[in-house]
Amino acid sequence: MFLDANSGLSLQAQIRQKLVEAITLGTFPPERRLPSSRKLAQQLGVARNTVVLVYEQLVEEGYLVSRERSGIYISEAALKGRIDTKAGAQSNRASLSHWRQRFKASPAGREPYLFPPNWSLHPYPFLEGKFDASLFPVKEWREASRLALGVRDINAWSEETGDADDPMLVEEIRTKILPRRGIQALPEEILVTVGSRQAMHLAVQLLVDSTITVAVEDPGTPVMRQMLAQRGASMIYQPVDEEGIVVDSALDDAQLLYVTPSHQIPTSVTMSLARRQSLLAKAGERDQLIIEDDTEFENNYIGQPHPALRSMDQEGRVIYFSCLSKVLDTGLCVGFIVAAPEFIAEARKLRRLAVNHPPPNNQRAAAYFLSLGNYDSFLMHMHQRFGERWKALQEALSLYLLHFVESTSSQGGTSVWIQGPPEIEMSELVNEAARRGILIEPVSHYYANPPQNVSYFRMSITSIGVGKIREGVERLSDLIHELTSDRFETLEHARGRCLSAAEITDLFSGATVFWKTINGDPATIDYMKDGRAEGRIGYANEDRGEGQWWVKGDLWYRQWERWYFGEPLGFHVVVDGSTLKLFEEDGQLSDIGVLHIPDDESETIARD
Amino acid sequence: MFLDANSGLSLQAQIRQKLVEAITLGTFPPERRLPSSRKLAQQLGVARNTVVLVYEQLVEEGYLVSRERSGIYISEAALKGRIDTKAGAQSNRASLSHWRQRFKASPAGREPYLFPPNWSLHPYPFLEGKFDASLFPVKEWREASRLALGVRDINAWSEETGDADDPMLVEEIRTKILPRRGIQALPEEILVTVGSRQAMHLAVQLLVDSTITVAVEDPGTPVMRQMLAQRGASMIYQPVDEEGIVVDSALDDAQLLYVTPSHQIPTSVTMSLARRQSLLAKAGERDQLIIEDDTEFENNYIGQPHPALRSMDQEGRVIYFSCLSKVLDTGLCVGFIVAAPEFIAEARKLRRLAVNHPPPNNQRAAAYFLSLGNYDSFLMHMHQRFGERWKALQEALSLYLLHFVESTSSQGGTSVWIQGPPEIEMSELVNEAARRGILIEPVSHYYANPPQNVSYFRMSITSIGVGKIREGVERLSDLIHELTSDRFETLEHARGRCLSAAEITDLFSGATVFWKTINGDPATIDYMKDGRAEGRIGYANEDRGEGQWWVKGDLWYRQWERWYFGEPLGFHVVVDGSTLKLFEEDGQLSDIGVLHIPDDESETIARD
Repeated sequence: MFLDANSGLSLQAQIRQKLVEAITLGTFPPERRLPSSRKLAQQLGVARNTVVLVYEQLVEEGYLVSRERSGIYISEAALKGRIDTKAGAQSNRASLSHWRQRFKASPAGREPYLFPPNWSLHPYPFLEGKFDASLFPVKEWREASRLALGVRDINAWSEETGDADDPMLVEEIRTKILPRRGIQALPEEILVTVGSRQAMHLAVQLLVDSTITVAVEDPGTPVMRQMLAQRGASMIYQPVDEEGIVVDSALDDAQLLYVTPSHQIPTSVTMSLARRQSLLAKAGERDQLIIEDDTEFENNYIGQPHPALRSMDQEGRVIYFSCLSKVLDTGLCVGFIVAAPEFIAEARKLRRLAVNHPPPNNQRAAAYFLSLGNYDSFLMHMHQRFGERWKALQEALSLYLLHFVESTSSQGGTSVWIQGPPEIEMSELVNEAARRGILIEPVSHYYANPPQNVSYFRMSITSIGVGKIREGVERLSDLIHELTSDRFETLEHARGRCLSAAEITDLFSGATVFWKTINGDPATIDYMKDGRAEGRIGYANEDRGEGQWWVKGDLWYRQWERWYFGEPLGFHVVVDGSTLKLFEEDGQLSDIGVLHIPDDESETIARD
Repeated sequence: MFLDANSGLSLQAQIRQKLVEAITLGTFPPERRLPSSRKLAQQLGVARNTVVLVYEQLVEEGYLVSRERSGIYISEAALKGRIDTKAGAQSNRASLSHWRQRFKASPAGREPYLFPPNWSLHPYPFLEGKFDASLFPVKEWREASRLALGVRDINAWSEETGDADDPMLVEEIRTKILPRRGIQALPEEILVTVGSRQAMHLAVQLLVDSTITVAVEDPGTPVMRQMLAQRGASMIYQPVDEEGIVVDSALDDAQLLYVTPSHQIPTSVTMSLARRQSLLAKAGERDQLIIEDDTEFENNYIGQPHPALRSMDQEGRVIYFSCLSKVLDTGLCVGFIVAAPEFIAEARKLRRLAVNHPPPNNQRAAAYFLSLGNYDSFLMHMHQRFGERWKALQEALSLYLLHFVESTSSQGGTSVWIQGPPEIEMSELVNEAARRGILIEPVSHYYANPPQNVSYFRMSITSIGVGKIREGVERLSDLIHELTSDRFETLEHARGRCLSAAEITDLFSGATVFWKTINGDPATIDYMKDGRAEGRIGYANEDRGEGQWWVKGDLWYRQWERWYFGEPLGFHVVVDGSTLKLFEEDGQLSDIGVLHIPDDESETIARD
């Protein structure tokens, strides 16, 4: 018996755990005395009193008995009600044949993509949906859990009859979560579920059978396609553009639409307000129902979130589901549906058959967590943490991988959908990156019918600390450079002419350059004669920044206050027609821009 | 804003809760200052420091901001990410038509029986499955929950990939729960579920469709029939006798059998060992699978429990499921399946579609609860509590309702299956009893095809304290006497002759009487000349007791050490042929016996 100094358990608890284990394993049958407290304390190297306290507690509980002048034994009561394993036990190893034929409900579809089991040992895990404890509101959830185990609260578990949810939780969802999404709901329009997955499952069970056609986003959530296939539904795979799912006549034949408007899964595209309106209009026109998966509602870093479809739906066509938060859903599994009372009543009956009810202790703990305002604080905290990470990822992508990848524009979310260089085999990139400690997510499983060579991958920020992001992207960039070394220009073989220090100064003073992107969006930069620089980013100049430029040796330097990690970086400048190319000191191409030429100065470039 | 002195929450927590609520309701929009700590403290009648601490904490969390020389306001960050309800909100009150036609999976079967919602206000709730907090191991579960929220443990939630269960919990189930039932299992033979209900549901989903015939016990679990009907299965309703489900050729056409061997639901009959063996033999012969519902494994008060079918099954035909305990299942919903690895692998896939995974926090808490030996202590405690209650119920039934009801013999469980007087309409009895504060359970919903007049009802001990049981039964007895007043003899109109004191003494000295029952079983009592009495109860004399008898006035008294609550009770004695009748002082018939007449003393009775 050894104790673990690093265990979260107290010495007493550890001794108790080990003793109970030894008794369970039959080390101390009823006729054999347990070691004396003195002896056990010596063996374990703890104070005798620690062992005495454990023994006393177990005796008090009736688990052990102390027999006078003999010692401590396991009690008869503790053994009562157990089957003598020698009598009853069979090895149960015989294997029945033909199991496959006996199964009547095998889930259809491909196996889910699994992350490497040792993912957390990789230094750069850009994986979606993995969370470490630092993201979890440990102290607050502990407090909420403690309160949920109050005598009054436990009594309430049994007070409830039938299928009712914890009324305290329903009220908190109604008043604290739904208004964030613009949704007003009555208690009878809300059903608590075992995580968001059960919400999705109940909706599909209730609305879909083999007579139904369902339109889903493509790429989209694989588990939804699996559920639909299991129900024998027909599916329409509808593409996603930069405004979300495409709304056109291809949707006409569906009775049901499944969408993820907040941040589309997996591309993170936020559905535009206009698209939301046309989707609702289409649904009304064709008498369709809409399942709105709002599990990605959090974490808009740019602009305000759009209201949920459910909040815009005047006809009661939207079945909305979400969870407390993706981070909390992993460990606590509290989700909910908001829909018409008719739907909720029926889903409640289905739920009763499937799980009786979601664990009341977690329902009540969630209710306290919400009612004490910890939920709001938690979301603020997450927003800040994830926001920092997301920005670091965007900046690093823009710094190291500008030419190699195209990231889909998004208001936020927790992952970035990235188009890689088409000449790289994606599985090779994913595997080789993993060998170098960088985990990026392959995405072919998101497609209903994956193309021969999917050129996309995904990088997420839920499982990687902000300090590791830049380094991880830099290493990924090195790998991609290696894999595409024959594709891109290097300084040595660059077309055009490499400028001298004087020529650079001359070129940039008072110039405006359109760079390909900064942080994923196109950028327009004005370079002043005095060395200042002013930049506007995005199609609508959503972000503005200030910086400096200067020349040193034959290198052109830039440094921005907020962009590119605020660091100075020097480049060789090559002019090729109207194109400007920046090469890093090691000769690799870093960025491409176009010089803006005012009419009266059109000679500036023509000279070269 | 008012504080509740009786709340389980601290004053600080209450103030925090109310403040957050007021902010949520819009009482303090961003532009409006919150009341000063001095003012709020005055209003609430608490120390100012209490309010200051709440404000400080909320400011630290970023929920509130303190503006210099102005006061405290809700922070912008706290409002960020919320939809302006005025902009987005719709009342969502429009109701879509034709909902009924859109549902593709309405649960078939009758609505479940619901207990009265105010059941806990009734003084005598003999209801199954309702538990008060006094039965729940509050302290131990709190400790286990606290440990489960350790940083290491939370990290483990995310370490897991895919569908794996908490390995700690699987190991604890394997080594601490299953051996009690005689079951040996490998980790890959175990699947954790969201309570026992999900275990049942997964088994049915996986094994049953409309091509399958399933044999179920009748009376039996209504929810199982509902699940089977939903899958379109054919059903065989098989009767239950005193050894459990009847095994005969009626089972031949089933591919699947569903049984509750430990304590049959709802009759509490324990399946005999012989019946278990013949059931397994039948399954082998007809290549059938068996679902063994062992949720009632606890609480044998008489004799040792039989090993689970799964432990006797040498062919791997048994799919076993259970939960930590019925008491814990209500609030925490931790259940599990034990079956062949092929079955578990497939059920795991189905589970992933339905709920992703059972809440990891509860899985880990259950694991700590088991590993610290608290589970064993808890079962001992329950066994004792429920045992006392069960015995009190049996004694009270025997004392007050001997002639009116027949209770099914059982080794224990938490309820008694009772046949009432056939001339009473059962719904009348249930309703009138409820009006008098006594809740007994009607049982027609347990029958697949309920007979016109079900003469059974059920009384359970999970929701009523031991001190209330006798009183409840006595009042129920009064009611039954009223409802059947025209049926039974009273002393006034008794057939036979009422004995005098001398005749009673003469009759009982050295006599042996067979009484109809004590505590539900037939009793044989020897009455000595010196006033001692020795009794044997049961078909095999399973229980023995000692007592006294005497005569006072014209009444015959008896008092047992352990039976009839150990109280002295006096009766008028009437002899009618060879039958002895005992009448209570108020004239109501209490017991009927037959005098054992040794051949050489056959004159004793003939005289009368």
